[in-house]
Amino acid sequence: MESDYGLARELSALQKKRTQYQPELPPCLQGTTVRVEYGDGTTTVDPSSSHVISHAFPCTYGQPLAHFLRPSTKVSDAQIITDHPVIRVGVVFCGRQSPGGHNVIWGLLNAVKSHNPGSIMLGFLGGTEGLFAQKTMEITYDILSSFKNQGGFDLLGRTQDQIRTSEQVNAAKAACEALKLNGLVIIGGVTSNTDAAHLAETFAETNCQTKVVGVPVTLNGDLRNQFVETDVGFDTICRVNSQLISNICLDALSAEKYYYFIRLMGHKASHVAVECALQSHPNMVFLAEEVAMSKFNLFDITKQISDAVQARAEQGKYHGVILIPEGLVESIPELFALLQEIHGLQSQGVDMESISSHLSPWASALFEFLPPFIRKQFLLPPESDNSAQFSEIEIEKLLAQLVDAEMNKRMKEGTYKGKKFNPICHFFGYQTRGSLPSKFDCDYAYVLGHICYHILAAGLNGYMATVTNLKHSVEKWRCGATPITAMMTVKQYSGGPGAIPIRKPVLHPTQVDLKGKVYEMLRQNAYSFLMDDLYRNPGPLQFEGPGTDVKSYTLCVEDQDYMGRIKKLQNYLDKVRCIVKPGCSPEILKAALSSMASVTEVLTVMSTPKSNGHILL
Amino acid sequence: MESDYGLARELSALQKKRTQYQPELPPCLQGTTVRVEYGDGTTTVDPSSSHVISHAFPCTYGQPLAHFLRPSTKVSDAQIITDHPVIRVGVVFCGRQSPGGHNVIWGLLNAVKSHNPGSIMLGFLGGTEGLFAQKTMEITYDILSSFKNQGGFDLLGRTQDQIRTSEQVNAAKAACEALKLNGLVIIGGVTSNTDAAHLAETFAETNCQTKVVGVPVTLNGDLRNQFVETDVGFDTICRVNSQLISNICLDALSAEKYYYFIRLMGHKASHVAVECALQSHPNMVFLAEEVAMSKFNLFDITKQISDAVQARAEQGKYHGVILIPEGLVESIPELFALLQEIHGLQSQGVDMESISSHLSPWASALFEFLPPFIRKQFLLPPESDNSAQFSEIEIEKLLAQLVDAEMNKRMKEGTYKGKKFNPICHFFGYQTRGSLPSKFDCDYAYVLGHICYHILAAGLNGYMATVTNLKHSVEKWRCGATPITAMMTVKQYSGGPGAIPIRKPVLHPTQVDLKGKVYEMLRQNAYSFLMDDLYRNPGPLQFEGPGTDVKSYTLCVEDQDYMGRIKKLQNYLDKVRCIVKPGCSPEILKAALSSMASVTEVLTVMSTPKSNGHILL
Repeated sequence: MESDYGLARELSALQKKRTQYQPELPPCLQGTTVRVEYGDGTTTVDPSSSHVISHAFPCTYGQPLAHFLRPSTKVSDAQIITDHPVIRVGVVFCGRQSPGGHNVIWGLLNAVKSHNPGSIMLGFLGGTEGLFAQKTMEITYDILSSFKNQGGFDLLGRTQDQIRTSEQVNAAKAACEALKLNGLVIIGGVTSNTDAAHLAETFAETNCQTKVVGVPVTLNGDLRNQFVETDVGFDTICRVNSQLISNICLDALSAEKYYYFIRLMGHKASHVAVECALQSHPNMVFLAEEVAMSKFNLFDITKQISDAVQARAEQGKYHGVILIPEGLVESIPELFALLQEIHGLQSQGVDMESISSHLSPWASALFEFLPPFIRKQFLLPPESDNSAQFSEIEIEKLLAQLVDAEMNKRMKEGTYKGKKFNPICHFFGYQTRGSLPSKFDCDYAYVLGHICYHILAAGLNGYMATVTNLKHSVEKWRCGATPITAMMTVKQYSGGPGAIPIRKPVLHPTQVDLKGKVYEMLRQNAYSFLMDDLYRNPGPLQFEGPGTDVKSYTLCVEDQDYMGRIKKLQNYLDKVRCIVKPGCSPEILKAALSSMASVTEVLTVMSTPKSNGHILL
Repeated sequence: MESDYGLARELSALQKKRTQYQPELPPCLQGTTVRVEYGDGTTTVDPSSSHVISHAFPCTYGQPLAHFLRPSTKVSDAQIITDHPVIRVGVVFCGRQSPGGHNVIWGLLNAVKSHNPGSIMLGFLGGTEGLFAQKTMEITYDILSSFKNQGGFDLLGRTQDQIRTSEQVNAAKAACEALKLNGLVIIGGVTSNTDAAHLAETFAETNCQTKVVGVPVTLNGDLRNQFVETDVGFDTICRVNSQLISNICLDALSAEKYYYFIRLMGHKASHVAVECALQSHPNMVFLAEEVAMSKFNLFDITKQISDAVQARAEQGKYHGVILIPEGLVESIPELFALLQEIHGLQSQGVDMESISSHLSPWASALFEFLPPFIRKQFLLPPESDNSAQFSEIEIEKLLAQLVDAEMNKRMKEGTYKGKKFNPICHFFGYQTRGSLPSKFDCDYAYVLGHICYHILAAGLNGYMATVTNLKHSVEKWRCGATPITAMMTVKQYSGGPGAIPIRKPVLHPTQVDLKGKVYEMLRQNAYSFLMDDLYRNPGPLQFEGPGTDVKSYTLCVEDQDYMGRIKKLQNYLDKVRCIVKPGCSPEILKAALSSMASVTEVLTVMSTPKSNGHILL
């Protein structure tokens, strides 16, 4: 099977053209020398978690941020790395494929070879399975040539497996040692980067010489935090989805008789749905985060849609487009509780056929109320992260049927006097995931690949490659590396009966911030989107001309550049130290002391863990 | 409701850029004068039908072909149209929306206004309903500005209604007379153009002064015959579908564990499936035409797919992509017969709930064998053309389930030893129909719009605008007009019990030619597509760079330019007449007579209707 990996493929004219595109590098990575500046040691966003995390990661917790700078940059205590011995680097695709993944490998190869042509880069075949089994292919420019700027993970393939059990960790370690790897680069989302952090810790504890580096690549857009502005693939996924949603909107507007219910991939968080809504202006979008916060149940949502259908009918409009993120199913309280019961019974070994007879009375009543197709889908075993199999659960179809029943009821009762409600359901899943990557994702992934090399050259372990200031053009991007542990949080899942409570520090998928600017923007437009059909078509992905360099709202609207702001704070502290040198006037010292006392007090209060030990996320 | 039509919309950067694209015109339509050359009177492809058609269309059958030429072209008996009085033209979108439709209107407006700025163009709002109700909007450059080169039919909207009953025909006539229209342009597919022909005949018979013109616009690709090389929208639909299919292929190749069953729109014919398969090289494609010819039943198809899955598993491959045209459901003999029975019972007024108890024993057995979801879909009432509601019948899901059951059976029996078969189903329908049109469809539709004007200026009635030589660049395109009756055939449907047999001359959807070059190309590659994963990604729609001017295989591979070849024949006949003028040598006359006698004899035999009166189509 593995003999097929890395084979040259027949490329279309456009694919060929795309292979010829050379992503830019930001100024700090151009040339052969890079200066590394270290920031302060890192902590975590939730002060109450820091001791749990530091306990779990004694070797790798608290490491400093690293900034990669131009060699000419005047920073006193930065380290210029001039020695570039031959190194051996392994790379593995973990988790689900995401457009742009191949460019991480290309960027890495480019950096590895340009610093020492004798260095070797090995790709693990078939994801973590290849890692455990030590199945590798040497990555060369020749092999890469038809994969540059292309979608998919098919150069190496991937599995969905994790590196978690001690058996798996040991196999990974054995592979790194047998292959004499100086570095192992793990490409993936929150789960894979959590695994990368654990692997780095184990390697450090057991004196394995391989350094582990993570790269944020996931189409869900949920590997996002103060250090990571967006992940590779999200931009492409949103653009391709928006193209298709816009097509559907135009179709709705032309035919004027259908309501489209479109389910979007994106796992538990609704980032993809938010971005697509802002790009293409459908009539409605439900966010898992919003539904969970408002505790809307199935009937609330049905009523909301039905009322919208009715309001539009009163304006003579019998068409519409509604976006449903796949994760919605777990944010509707009663459905989540039902799923938890089912998964609990499954983990106790109750077989599929008899599950419904073991449910609690209320869950059983709900289960029987659901149409047969969705009952069957609810009985599917959960994913490895305990979530439901979102891609298999047709929540959009369930909602369409419920709204249909409600509209028929209103029609019979005479409260709805419009034409018949016609729903059509679509699932936009796998057809976007394999897309050619957008220019942004090509550039971003390529730069991240380069950074991975510099992380290894600096001898860092357990770091994630990061680029900030992404909303600006490439020459303004700032490159750095962050200890993965600094992005971790500890959440306690209550879980259903039978579920194992999880207290481990992990990278949690970041939810849509309901207090953020992106959400606000969506809410401000919600009514006009609903009623006025302001459909907008960003069109198919381009590499030239208008629309090429448009970046996602999700990336551009929020305040970003946390790393830049951290650096700015350091500058302030340095300046104070510089002004208040021994010998300065007592007035200046007094002013400094009084100001700093008040600043310190405020920050201490803000940083103290709350007494009940819970945090809101 | 109609107040929303033609409103300016918020356009994205790319949409704006597209509105600025100015399609080219072929040389014959540049400038202000156009020369019209008439060919011989037309007949139909099936000699046995010609008397039925001529009987149904006494006024409009047998009219000559028209060719539009540059004024400088040296054709002795061509007519130069120099008089361009003020005219009033109505235009209506009929049937399903198809990318490029708006450009027909733009081209027409451009031709109308450039020949006489005083002329008026009216668009009917909401399709045929607007026509019957005389709801119009004057089409101006201002209103058109945000619809140029855009997808959808939303400038005017559309309905699915036909112009068929005498009530509808009379309403259309009343509208044309009340609005003093010189011409009515009907934009649509086979059904709408059939209606256009009937309307033209009625208008001619009843001395209505409005001339009726048809334009071939349908995404199914089935309005295709010796005069019409392709229809507007087909190119875009195939490109957008191919982009998505390719994305799925890459996803399959990256994850290596899913079989994707993708249902494609395209109605009864499988043109879209053929073209997409040639563009993106999925592992398998089923054609409705092939299945119908081979009389494959559900089990044959299940076995074919299962065998393919098994053969791939033996090579370590557990992924694949299979294209299923929506029309397949009616080409599987037993499913078609079952649908016929159901539709027959429905037309007798048997209600949904009791249909299954009225079925014949064999049909009832089959019906009960089918999974509940598809039973429900089979009970939907048929479309206005008596076909099943293809877009609602999840035939891909049925096949996936049957293959799943078969693979499980083989696994239990020990004949299949591979990993579990994992199918995922997708329907690529409405998300492609509203796409921005391809450059080809923009150009083609715009030129067709121009031709409509010249047809009206020449005073022709019951014609369709045609462009031939389309596989070459625009400057080589040949523009003409063909009597719609010359494209008609008469087919006798046997129908199921209760179905009304149809003997009327109509434009039938053209099937994929199983003796044609396109099909041959597909078959030649079938095995390597199946086994070798030669996936290819034509990429997202571009207006610049590689891939922009690539035309469909369906258009380029077959011998086309029937109109050109008809003209060539006329040249030969003219030459013979010229050489064998009275006074020529007896030897020449003898040679001519003998040669022409043999040619005439061969052609007479070939053109004589077969004795049983049936034709194979």
